[in-house]
Amino acid sequence: MEQLQDLLAQLRQFVAERDWQQFHDPKNLAMLLASEAGELLAEYRWVSNDQADAVSREGDRRARILSEVGDVGIALLLLCERIGADPVATMRAKLEVNRTRYPADLVRGKSDRPPLK
Amino acid sequence: MEQLQDLLAQLRQFVAERDWQQFHDPKNLAMLLASEAGELLAEYRWVSNDQADAVSREGDRRARILSEVGDVGIALLLLCERIGADPVATMRAKLEVNRTRYPADLVRGKSDRPPLK
Amino acid sequence: MEQLQDLLAQLRQFVAERDWQQFHDPKNLAMLLASEAGELLAEYRWVSNDQADAVSREGDRRARILSEVGDVGIALLLLCERIGADPVATMRAKLEVNRTRYPADLVRGKSDRPPLK
Amino acid sequence: MEQLQDLLAQLRQFVAERDWQQFHDPKNLAMLLASEAGELLAEYRWVSNDQADAVSREGDRRARILSEVGDVGIALLLLCERIGADPVATMRAKLEVNRTRYPADLVRGKSDRPPLK
Repeated sequence: MEQLQDLLAQLRQFVAERDWQQFHDPKNLAMLLASEAGELLAEYRWVSNDQADAVSREGDRRARILSEVGDVGIALLLLCERIGADPVATMRAKLEVNRTRYPADLVRGKSDRPPLK
Repeated sequence: MEQLQDLLAQLRQFVAERDWQQFHDPKNLAMLLASEAGELLAEYRWVSNDQADAVSREGDRRARILSEVGDVGIALLLLCERIGADPVATMRAKLEVNRTRYPADLVRGKSDRPPLK
Repeated sequence: MEQLQDLLAQLRQFVAERDWQQFHDPKNLAMLLASEAGELLAEYRWVSNDQADAVSREGDRRARILSEVGDVGIALLLLCERIGADPVATMRAKLEVNRTRYPADLVRGKSDRPPLK
Repeated sequence: MEQLQDLLAQLRQFVAERDWQQFHDPKNLAMLLASEAGELLAEYRWVSNDQADAVSREGDRRARILSEVGDVGIALLLLCERIGADPVATMRAKLEVNRTRYPADLVRGKSDRPPLK
């Protein structure tokens, strides 16, 4: 796995070289993130659950999916950077909350209580 | 910054202990990601651009924002894991595409050509 | 079917009585719409395609789905009102575009070319 | 304002002629709706609140916005049709809930309690 720290430095430079900080307030970045998540969603909207794994391995489709995953991830990192949040620590903290909220013995094999909310 | 590699291992274990892999096909995870991005969006919908940075530092609001950032990040990692994509490498590859697509000299200080799409 | 015209008048009054026009610029309303669409999405994220029709008829779930459908519709009408667009005429115009873009003989029974984009 | 009833009949015919009912279960339509809402969002992501009304009147931009509004509306109507919900009655019912939830005297001019949720 490549280094997240390096990528964050590159993103910072990418934005600075284009003088885009002025557009990157947290509201706009949350919109960027949600619109990119919508594009990723579009790749799966006519795919059935049964086909979703296979479709994710097909050449052109896979390239489009990875492109959208990249967009979503970049938007999330830009937002973390802007609001001063460590992305990995923030996810780890939420995972701890989820551990308490969804005790394994109570939710095992069940989807009716929506997980990860 | 904490280690992404460790977090991925913990996420894998969290899902396995709950036997949730059966619900986590890429279609459902793309839906999870988009719905969590929608909840993050909701935190900023009545906030003006001018207030968005300050609001992101307020106690209760910040806690809710970080909680949603964590959810979005976890959903993204779960999807990467499921489709066999390295999250950092995928973002780095998209950043390279964006470098070519948005040459700094052409787009500096401009928002009218939507960046990062 | 009830009258859309009446509903629009009631919505206008609802917003005016609360002095909320100041928050309802098109950017914020687009965010409202997307965040409500995300909540609707959340109702179906762990439901398989095969179960989705049946689940939409279940008591509590149906009530939540209708509540989210109502939110999305209201957000869309508020946006139409704000930007001066007739909702039905706007949908009809897009349907005409879709008729041309997706000739029935070419796309019949196929989902691989994403429809309605 | 044009007639919603007529439009619904045309939509029904459009889908039937393409044999697309098989893809239009409520889960997939909720995804369609959210992805279209994401595209509408994208039109406003780099626009400030102050510019959002003016931008919504500009030629090319307005055409794209109306196209996305049409997509969102069509997706919503297709979902209503599929789950057997009257769109106007569903919105009216939610407006009644909102009247109770947000008494005018308590929320007038305030955005800190998110309306229409």
